[in-house]
Parts: sequence; structure tokens; C-alpha cells
Amino acid sequence: MERPMQLLGQISEVGKDSRRGGYSRPVFSTAETDLRGWFVAAAQQRGLQVETDRNSIIWAWWGEPGPDAVVTGSHLDSVPGGGEYDGPLGVASALSAIDLMRQRGQEPRRPLAVAVFPEEEGSRFGVACIGSRLLSGAIDPDKARNLTDADGNTLAEVFRTNGTDPEHLGMDSERLAGIGRFVELHIEQGRGQIDLQAPVAVASSILGHGRWKLSFGGQGNHAGTTLMNDRSDPMVAAAQAVVDIRRIAAAHPGARGTVGRISPIPGGTNVIASRVDLWMDVRHRTDEVTAAIVAEIHAAGRRIAAAEGCTLTLSEESLSPTVQFHPGLASELLGVLGDVPVLESGAGHDAGVLAASLPTAMLFVRNPTGVSHAPQEEIETADADAGAVALADVLAHLTDAEAAP
Amino acid sequence: MERPMQLLGQISEVGKDSRRGGYSRPVFSTAETDLRGWFVAAAQQRGLQVETDRNSIIWAWWGEPGPDAVVTGSHLDSVPGGGEYDGPLGVASALSAIDLMRQRGQEPRRPLAVAVFPEEEGSRFGVACIGSRLLSGAIDPDKARNLTDADGNTLAEVFRTNGTDPEHLGMDSERLAGIGRFVELHIEQGRGQIDLQAPVAVASSILGHGRWKLSFGGQGNHAGTTLMNDRSDPMVAAAQAVVDIRRIAAAHPGARGTVGRISPIPGGTNVIASRVDLWMDVRHRTDEVTAAIVAEIHAAGRRIAAAEGCTLTLSEESLSPTVQFHPGLASELLGVLGDVPVLESGAGHDAGVLAASLPTAMLFVRNPTGVSHAPQEEIETADADAGAVALADVLAHLTDAEAAP
Repeated sequence: MERPMQLLGQISEVGKDSRRGGYSRPVFSTAETDLRGWFVAAAQQRGLQVETDRNSIIWAWWGEPGPDAVVTGSHLDSVPGGGEYDGPLGVASALSAIDLMRQRGQEPRRPLAVAVFPEEEGSRFGVACIGSRLLSGAIDPDKARNLTDADGNTLAEVFRTNGTDPEHLGMDSERLAGIGRFVELHIEQGRGQIDLQAPVAVASSILGHGRWKLSFGGQGNHAGTTLMNDRSDPMVAAAQAVVDIRRIAAAHPGARGTVGRISPIPGGTNVIASRVDLWMDVRHRTDEVTAAIVAEIHAAGRRIAAAEGCTLTLSEESLSPTVQFHPGLASELLGVLGDVPVLESGAGHDAGVLAASLPTAMLFVRNPTGVSHAPQEEIETADADAGAVALADVLAHLTDAEAAP
Repeated sequence: MERPMQLLGQISEVGKDSRRGGYSRPVFSTAETDLRGWFVAAAQQRGLQVETDRNSIIWAWWGEPGPDAVVTGSHLDSVPGGGEYDGPLGVASALSAIDLMRQRGQEPRRPLAVAVFPEEEGSRFGVACIGSRLLSGAIDPDKARNLTDADGNTLAEVFRTNGTDPEHLGMDSERLAGIGRFVELHIEQGRGQIDLQAPVAVASSILGHGRWKLSFGGQGNHAGTTLMNDRSDPMVAAAQAVVDIRRIAAAHPGARGTVGRISPIPGGTNVIASRVDLWMDVRHRTDEVTAAIVAEIHAAGRRIAAAEGCTLTLSEESLSPTVQFHPGLASELLGVLGDVPVLESGAGHDAGVLAASLPTAMLFVRNPTGVSHAPQEEIETADADAGAVALADVLAHLTDAEAAP
């Protein structure tokens, strides 16, 4: 059998980002395509039956696909300059768990599959969990097809180039109906398990979260010839908004408000920008609080823009309410795993999207730095092994596996 | 003869930027290379003798190059999303002025040349007026060769690809020694001539200006899993710095302080940045005040960074002291042109760089919007004609031209 860190060692050079540090593996980049190829080969080596569905999700089946299947898996794409484990740990642990079940002589009585979802991070097309959203009907296929990346390529073009006909994107009820339960293993992205000294945890819920674009418009002009009093500078307005987003989010306990991306147009050093776009990520466990925070930021932004002689347009790019995972399934996991803690997830996951369609659960593996979406993300080998064992135990239980005679 | 607006009409489609509006003509882009080709053809049509020197400056000579030459000219590159006239107006007016002198039967007794300088805006390699700086020894050739554009190409590579051996870049004393006087015609970039109702003006000086890079370092992390209190977010620090740069510059009468470019790394929506770079442009007529403003901003930036648990590195990318144009030459221009106003320039120009090496002067043509480095930059045809006539009058005077028999 191969342990998770052995499997991850096979891909540790793929998509390294020397400029940002860490890994940049946007969906259908050379790096992510290489990782998909690596997964297909690893699954085929294990005799799993591999198919790519009409939403570019890869499925590797142990046993014939059939009713009441148990599915595990995660994603292989990353944020720009992300860590090594966010996504790939879940995929590698799934393969390792299958190895472990076989080593134990456990044969599933229900179909078992490992799934790899495309564009979980939304770092290329701006909307996270595209694969699971398409599968479950949570995004309109037309909207998905027309999403564009930073170079102006549409998702439709990129999917077509990579072998998926964009005409057939969208909800796949038949496939969904065949899945009984979905369990995703993932690196923990905060400090919860550090504080609890727990290598493995079960998720209770995913914090509601959304992305909004704020576009401040002003008067582009020359940085040298335009007096300070004659300016309508959208960069100043956008900067004040960033400061206010921090202040407003911090005033709501449990909320997160982040600006990680900002783009001045035209973007020259000696040019007062004519427009500045910024993207805001807001999360809170109570959806009404998220809405109230965004409304408060919108009002503050309008005041800031007016004071600078600028305009403001705020548009919602995505919004996911807080997701409660299936309580019965979580109880089953706790029954198998014994005394492991139950944690809320601050990050979104494909499991959160699928939770609207079928019973889903998540397992977390401890991250000793507590840092995620950055090169400092870490996993200890013993924790990775504990995660694979926990996943094998859970999958054996859910597939009602029996020891082969 | 061709009037300036006729000449500019020939290139009005080159380098149009449909995303930003206006024109994007960075040095040695396809657009700027096309413009250089257009200039060479227009000069050759006029029987001028064209050469490109070892710093990629194009010279078109009327008469044999020789001592005490009079040179006019400007640049063809633009900022991203810039206007149609910043640079090209001076080149087109020079050609038009030569047409006018010939129509009048004026034959220069001194050599007369039109020069086109590369990378005046600094929008590709970050340092403005590269051509005139190299020619006059105001930039170290090694420093210039190692400048990089946003795609990581070095200036040396780009110049080589475009036919200039980078090994031979640098001060050209022999060429400089042959130039008696330099006069650059340029669109005015502020509102000075609007207020004075003057189509043409003479420059007195160029405001001292510089560019500094501020790099805020923090802890990259996940936007959802990292509590607000656990953050060292360089975007928040950079935003507060942008607000403070505006406040500090506005508190010094006559100063300008601008941030037009900002770059978060890695730049994902759901990622707390690990570093944010921003570029600051500061200008004031008194060099000590410029230095004091930058020192004040640096101190404020350090306080901001410390409060956020971030680091700050501030580095000077370029600094040009205030330039007084040659008073004797300005007086000569006023003698030729009569009652035209004398204005300070808020913008930098190749003429400002060359002023350290030889007597230089500038003519401004009114910009009815007062907007520059933006698509709204404008020139009225009658003003462009008045500029070309003024330039022809000045060049005829300086070359001691006589009516052909």
C-alpha cells in the first residue's frame, strides 16, 4: 500500500510557484492537468474503473457503479501560491484508504468511488466548487459557460480544449441519485485541531460565505499635473473601503471580511486610476449577519465614493449559505472513530455544495501551522496516516465491507 | 504640407486599448514599433536622413549631422490606457514644422533633427525617460539593462530583439556635444492653459518627482479559517498607507502624491495576501519638500505595518530633482513667440533629462480637458496648428534659417 505522504511525494514538484512560493495549480493549467493524469494512472494501477463525467469530474470506481454508492474524494486545483495539501491530501488519502482496506482484506458490499472535482478554489473562473455546483444544479450551466479567467478565456472554451463538451455541462440527476453518501477528507485550514491536540476531526458545518466585487470609478489623470484638490481618485476610495471592510468585519464576532485581490485600471505608476476593482470575501455562520455586514460595507463604500467624487458598483459574484452537514452521518462517523472532536469549517468545500443533494460528511486532518492558502500549510506524516486510517474505517463501515474469505 | 492632426490621423488606430479605453503603446510593443516605423517612413518621405543610435533613439536629420545642431522631438510610447497626444503630438508637430519651413522657403543654416525617444513613460520598465537618460549618462547602463517588465523580460533582451545591441547602451558624449539646443513640443497635461486661454505656452521648469516602491509583508492565509484577530494582513496595511499618502501629500501645498499601481501576492479572492507591493509617485517644486514628504510617508507606513504585524520595505525606483529650463533659451522663445505665458510642468519629459547636458526648452499646446494619461486627453485642431507654427518659428530662429533664393 501507499501512504498519503508517499503519494503526495509523487506530485510534489508539479505546479511549484517560484515567484509566490508554494503551488499554483489553477484548473486545467498544465499543472492541474498533470495532476489529473497522475490520479487516473494511480486509480487504474489499483484496478479502479475510471470515467470523466460531463462536468469534468473524474470518478474512479471500486466495483460497478450502482445504487447507494459511497463516494469520497476532493480536488487537485489550488489557489495561486497555495499549499501542498489543500485538496490533494483528500485525493491521496482516498487512494491510500482503498489500499488499506484491501490490505485488511475488506471488500465493500456497496459501490465505492473516489471523485476529483474541478475548480474547487474558484481561483481561475471566480466561482468556487464549479464541478460540484454543476453536478448538483447549484449553478446555471449558462452562467458557468460564460465565466472568464484573467486572460479572457471562457470556461466553455477551456473545458472544451480539455475534452469536456461545454454543451453538456449541468445537473446530473441520474448520477446524483446513485450516490448514497459522500465523505470528503481535507486538511484543516485553521487552528482548531492544534488547540484540541486532535489529528483527526469531524465537521459539523461550513460557514456561509460569499464574494462581492466592488468597482470604484473616478477620473483617470496624470499624477504630476493634477492638483490634489482636483482629483477623483478611485484608488483612495478603494483603499478607504479596504480599511472599512476590516473594521466592519472585526466588529461582528465570528465574522471574516477579506480583500485579497485588487486591480487598478490602467495601473500605471504615474497615472491616477480611472477605476479600481476589488473583490471581497465575507463569511459568518448566520446568513443574516453576512447580509448585514455586506449592507453595512456597501453603505460605507457609497459614502467613501461620494466624498471622493467617485462612483461605486457592488455586485455579488457568489453566495453560499451556512451548510449543516447531515447529523445522522456525522454520528455514524463518530461511532466509528470514537472520541474525535467536531469542528465548524471556515472554508468552503465540494462537500458543502453536495450537502444540499445527499448526506455528506467531512473528516479534517490537523495542520500544525494553522496556515492555509499559503506555502506554510503543513501536514505531519503521522497525522496523514491517521487520516487515511480514519477514512478507511469510515469507508469500510459505510460500504458495509466484509473481510474477504 | 501635412498638419499635425493629419499626421496623427494616420496612426489613430495603432495601439487602441479596448479594455482600458485610449491607447496602450508600451515601448517595443507591436503598437510602438509600428509607430516608430511610421515615423521613419514619414521622415524619409521628407528626405530626412534617418538613423537609430545605440540607445534606440531615432534621429531624422535635415542637413548633415554636425556641430551646434538644433533638435526637436518627443516620444511615441504611452502609459496603459493613455491619450492620443502625449508624445506623438510633439513628433507630428516637428514633422509639420519642417513642412511649414519648407513651404515658407526657409533653409536652416544649422543642422536640424527630429528625435524620437524610447520608453519616455517608464510604463514598461518602471523608469521614465530611459532613452534620454542613457544618452546623457543619467542612468547606469547596467541598471538599465537589468530592468524588467511585468512579464520578467529584461530591457537588454527586449532592446536586443528590437535591433539594439544592449552592450552598447550608455552615454553618447560625441552625439551630445553636437547638439546646441533641444526644444520639445508637448501637449499640456494640466489646466494651466485653459485658465489662461493660451493655445501655446513656454515651460519654465519641471517639478521634481520620484517613484518609490512600498512592499508590505504579512502572513498569507485562508480568508475563511483565519479569525480577524489572528491576521497580519498586508492588504489592510497597504490600504491604510494609500489613505495616508493622500493625506500627507495634500497637507503640503503644491505637492502631488499618487498611488496608481498596487499588486497583492498571491492575489486570490479567498486568500489573505502574504505581500502587497504598491508604487508611489511624489512631486514638489522644492526637492527638500519631496524628501520630507517621502520621509513622513515612510514613518507613517512603518507605524501602520507595525500595528498590523507586518513589515515594510520602501525603495526608491527613480528620483529627478526639479529642473529649471535654460533661462536664455526660454527668453529667445518668448522673443520669437511674443506674448505667450510661461508655465511650470507637473509632468516629467525627456527635455527635463537633457536639460542637465545642454540648453533645452519646451513648448506646450493647450489641452481643453486638462486630463492626461487617460483617454479624455484632447487637442483642438486650431491649437495643434498654432503649436506647429510656433515650433516652426522657433526652429527657423534657432537654426538661423534664411529664405531660399
